[in-house]
Amino acid sequence: MVDALKLASDHGFPVVPFAVGSSLEGQVIPVHGGLSLDVSGMKAVLEVAAGGFQATVQPGVTYPELNRQIRHLGLFFPVDPGAEASLGGMASTNASGTAAVRYGTMRDNVLELRVALVSGEVIRVGSKARKTSAGYDLKNLFIGAEGTLGVITELTIRLWPLPANLVVLRANFETLGAAARCAVDIMGAALQPERLELIDERQIHAVNTHKGTDFPEAPTLWIELASPSETALAEALDLCRELVTDGGGVGLHAAHSAGERAKLWEARHHAYYAITALNPGHINMTTDLCVPLHQLPEVVEFTRREADAAGLDASIVGHVGDGNFHVLFHAPPDDLGTWAKVNTVYDAMITETLARGGTCTGEHGVGLHKRAYLAREHGDTLTLMRGIKALLDPAGLLNPGKILP
Amino acid sequence: MVDALKLASDHGFPVVPFAVGSSLEGQVIPVHGGLSLDVSGMKAVLEVAAGGFQATVQPGVTYPELNRQIRHLGLFFPVDPGAEASLGGMASTNASGTAAVRYGTMRDNVLELRVALVSGEVIRVGSKARKTSAGYDLKNLFIGAEGTLGVITELTIRLWPLPANLVVLRANFETLGAAARCAVDIMGAALQPERLELIDERQIHAVNTHKGTDFPEAPTLWIELASPSETALAEALDLCRELVTDGGGVGLHAAHSAGERAKLWEARHHAYYAITALNPGHINMTTDLCVPLHQLPEVVEFTRREADAAGLDASIVGHVGDGNFHVLFHAPPDDLGTWAKVNTVYDAMITETLARGGTCTGEHGVGLHKRAYLAREHGDTLTLMRGIKALLDPAGLLNPGKILP
Repeated sequence: MVDALKLASDHGFPVVPFAVGSSLEGQVIPVHGGLSLDVSGMKAVLEVAAGGFQATVQPGVTYPELNRQIRHLGLFFPVDPGAEASLGGMASTNASGTAAVRYGTMRDNVLELRVALVSGEVIRVGSKARKTSAGYDLKNLFIGAEGTLGVITELTIRLWPLPANLVVLRANFETLGAAARCAVDIMGAALQPERLELIDERQIHAVNTHKGTDFPEAPTLWIELASPSETALAEALDLCRELVTDGGGVGLHAAHSAGERAKLWEARHHAYYAITALNPGHINMTTDLCVPLHQLPEVVEFTRREADAAGLDASIVGHVGDGNFHVLFHAPPDDLGTWAKVNTVYDAMITETLARGGTCTGEHGVGLHKRAYLAREHGDTLTLMRGIKALLDPAGLLNPGKILP
Repeated sequence: MVDALKLASDHGFPVVPFAVGSSLEGQVIPVHGGLSLDVSGMKAVLEVAAGGFQATVQPGVTYPELNRQIRHLGLFFPVDPGAEASLGGMASTNASGTAAVRYGTMRDNVLELRVALVSGEVIRVGSKARKTSAGYDLKNLFIGAEGTLGVITELTIRLWPLPANLVVLRANFETLGAAARCAVDIMGAALQPERLELIDERQIHAVNTHKGTDFPEAPTLWIELASPSETALAEALDLCRELVTDGGGVGLHAAHSAGERAKLWEARHHAYYAITALNPGHINMTTDLCVPLHQLPEVVEFTRREADAAGLDASIVGHVGDGNFHVLFHAPPDDLGTWAKVNTVYDAMITETLARGGTCTGEHGVGLHKRAYLAREHGDTLTLMRGIKALLDPAGLLNPGKILP
């Protein structure tokens, strides 16, 4: 890798890091040509320090593969963006997923990075210690930089103890807004769920069709609770049932067995593919808004209203414990009329989100497609971001055309 | 503040932010003269969004004052560096404290900042949303920058639900190493303590003398556990007692009442002042090493051996669940022989810590005094750190002489 970067620097051609290609915003597309630098072969788990709750891995290791290798230690890595994503790529977009509500994002779970700069020089940023105040935080500069500032060559990440007892409560709601409001109540009751997912009736329908499941096709919350104590878990489940019922939830079903829970989360992780399969010939576009939790119900309802008014088939899923939700739009690529409507609705959603203190991307990153939205969200810091880019990559060779408008 | 920064920029004099002056590494000392910019009057709590688990405050608000104001909401801000520190200062050193083992550091608890640049321009970095992947992470660049890149004018921070049931288990050990090893076992058992503190016999003696307490004067662990369920808390306490007894702990005592727990944590927070009071005319020096958890016992034992061999009266306390511990050295200011020994021991401690993947500062920052150690820890990134400093403060007016060697 160092040789490739030196070659690129010497000859002035772009370098675009690639591992498994599961990012959603065009991050891995070499829009200005050059070298697609494939790190998927760098897949060694270099060290697992169980007593220190940490592992050191190469960037091509996927999170499911890491979890298979450490499961026997009673440990796991909680960031689960859905696809079989690589840890290097996940750090590069600051990915998260369903468990971020409890365990945080990549930013919260990366301790130390080794990064190859465009010159080929490899630096170490962060620390293997759990916390550090030693100088400027360069680690977080590379996390979420989508390969535009350097190429991650090694990560030391936090591991967590596998929860002893788990249960998933499922409940259906009359409206999306009611489900979102109930999610806020659950967070407010300090139940500290492992996962708290909102799935609308369209996504459930797609999942049922695609996976052969028979979930009721209504706005639904999936709430996962954990506790080291079975008694405490039963108490938490009781409180959660009460909150859900008070919030208008019906059809409550608690999944206790590992098999049933796994089937459920697999269905959630495959929601994107389910919609794709249901609409052959269409292309998808996914939004990734994230707002402060108490703003979530209004923004979700606003989104539904705008999409309905425009006559769009928009399905919604959300990591709602974090205030993060995705709208999946789809249409044939040449249906320009529909795509124009999508863009109008998306634009209104961004305006609403920013007015409520939210962000245009909670976990997918900016890539190619959200650069204009980044400008709207952080217009006052674009000069500074460009300064940092120029400092680290003066010739603009690292993943050019991404993030910065 | 903006006017002061513009004036400084126009006339080229240094600006050194100041709030309550509780930092430990000389961060607030205007070593190159100029303006000591006192933000302690900026003490408004601007907004508390209980449903969003967040508050927006000015930088002069202290964390105890914020906690007094939000207690009735069942919420608290968990970062507790001990002194009556201001939130702006705490962000500037990436402070933490006893509760970081459960709730993280300032970095984990600051969502958004407003920062005045040296030009006087105020920018917004981060997001009020719980997570964001929108562009380069400038927020974490200002956290821990000790006022050398900009002056924090406003913070939006995370709030947490007050734990419902709490207990503190106290136990004494024959050696410091045994206590540290037991702390690692407790973390390994996934008890997820609220706090996990190690206090050596010298600190306990000082606290007893200073506060009139009667804690047994031996290496001690103070372990705070919490649970929403009383049953679960009792189960956790039982497991913890077992681990402590297996680890050689004796004199186990569980403090259940709020009064007893408060007295205990006040004693811990005043440990620094206790040593000071015990040694009139002496000055103190505190180290702040942090290592991966599994390395902690060896580094603590190494430290004790080296200090004893040099004949130094070194007392040790630690946020050991994080791998972070402090050694307090003291001597009369003109006792150059003792200070030379201190520096030799400190140097050996740094070497040992860095060899084990640790950091020279877990929570105090670099300031004036640890610049040489920063160079040893992050020598390969000093050029990059200097580049960032030059980008944000080309004339070197913001808190000059700090962090960078």
